[in-house]
Amino acid sequence: MPHGYFITLEGVDGGGKTTQLERLAAALRERGLTVVTTREPGGTATAEQIRRVVLDKDLVMGARTELLLYLAARAEHVEHVIRPALAAGHVVLCDRFADSTLVYQGVVRGLPLDEVERLCRFAAEGVTPDRTILLDADPRALLARRADRQVEDRLEQEGLVFQEKVREGFLALWRRHGSRICRIDALRPADAVTRDILAALAGGDRFPRKDTNHV
Amino acid sequence: MPHGYFITLEGVDGGGKTTQLERLAAALRERGLTVVTTREPGGTATAEQIRRVVLDKDLVMGARTELLLYLAARAEHVEHVIRPALAAGHVVLCDRFADSTLVYQGVVRGLPLDEVERLCRFAAEGVTPDRTILLDADPRALLARRADRQVEDRLEQEGLVFQEKVREGFLALWRRHGSRICRIDALRPADAVTRDILAALAGGDRFPRKDTNHV
Repeated sequence: MPHGYFITLEGVDGGGKTTQLERLAAALRERGLTVVTTREPGGTATAEQIRRVVLDKDLVMGARTELLLYLAARAEHVEHVIRPALAAGHVVLCDRFADSTLVYQGVVRGLPLDEVERLCRFAAEGVTPDRTILLDADPRALLARRADRQVEDRLEQEGLVFQEKVREGFLALWRRHGSRICRIDALRPADAVTRDILAALAGGDRFPRKDTNHV
Repeated sequence: MPHGYFITLEGVDGGGKTTQLERLAAALRERGLTVVTTREPGGTATAEQIRRVVLDKDLVMGARTELLLYLAARAEHVEHVIRPALAAGHVVLCDRFADSTLVYQGVVRGLPLDEVERLCRFAAEGVTPDRTILLDADPRALLARRADRQVEDRLEQEGLVFQEKVREGFLALWRRHGSRICRIDALRPADAVTRDILAALAGGDRFPRKDTNHV
């Protein structure tokens, strides 16, 4: 049975995940690989409906409810998008996955990490990333380089505390899962970041090579 | 800190749960107890929205998704209805709870029971019934006594196989949790069933007595 290669991109907001996902997809396609890019809710009708509930600003919900809803959407995303693509032998690039759940619902919202981890495994029915790219950057440095700074100081300050907590959460996961998670300096120029990611992937076991001269 | 008493009613459809819930509530109120009757989704706006998704016949979803959605609704129900009522010292009577999840999503849909059990504990944040009334009846006998039989034989047959599986699931839970789950013969007349339930509850530890002559 063929098995593709599952890559997730993680990190704080503003670290360039979306840009790098597209650049990485293009680079892998150039090397002859079939690449599926995706992000939750993953485009299934059920997952979209769930997402609509979880993001409805008129609804109040507890941390457990929020987590269970995100995981319900993930179960659909895995079953209908990620697993079939992997079964077809494709490379799947996913913008955020279980590590984000651990950081945002576990570390930030304070739910017990071992439970969140177990729930993530249950929802994904054992589908786990082969490699995870952590686009890491100091949130202060990311903020400093933004040209469109229009937010007030106090809000900025609150946002920074939050983003620093998120960053620390990801770094803690990286320290625990060093063989899966590659930490990449997201503050370098976009071209250099893409090269760093490709180099990190090429060093991994089982990374698919259609053309070994290039990857 | 006051703590009320949490009673759940479980069993196959048609076993009289709704009727007995109301009769039981009335009997306990007569004895001076404050009783809250409830059933999922439990009347919170978020839980109603989740329920709408899970029951939408136009949406296809996997067993894991369905389970996670039911549990998301339960998390809201527990946090906003059941836990506050228990904290106020009330008796809570709930039509179906975690045992139904174990039977319908675990036994019937085939999800691993230990995982479903763990997920149920997580969603309810440790709130578990003090006593569970299992209104037990042979589905064939329930069907035979229905006056409004209008279904076709084949459907009836399929329904029976399903209901028998559900009944067996509940009986297996009763055998495992005999100190919590009271099995009551649901085929007796309604008055007798109510008396049996009250007698079973009176025999339990910690069952609240405002007037010890009557309960």
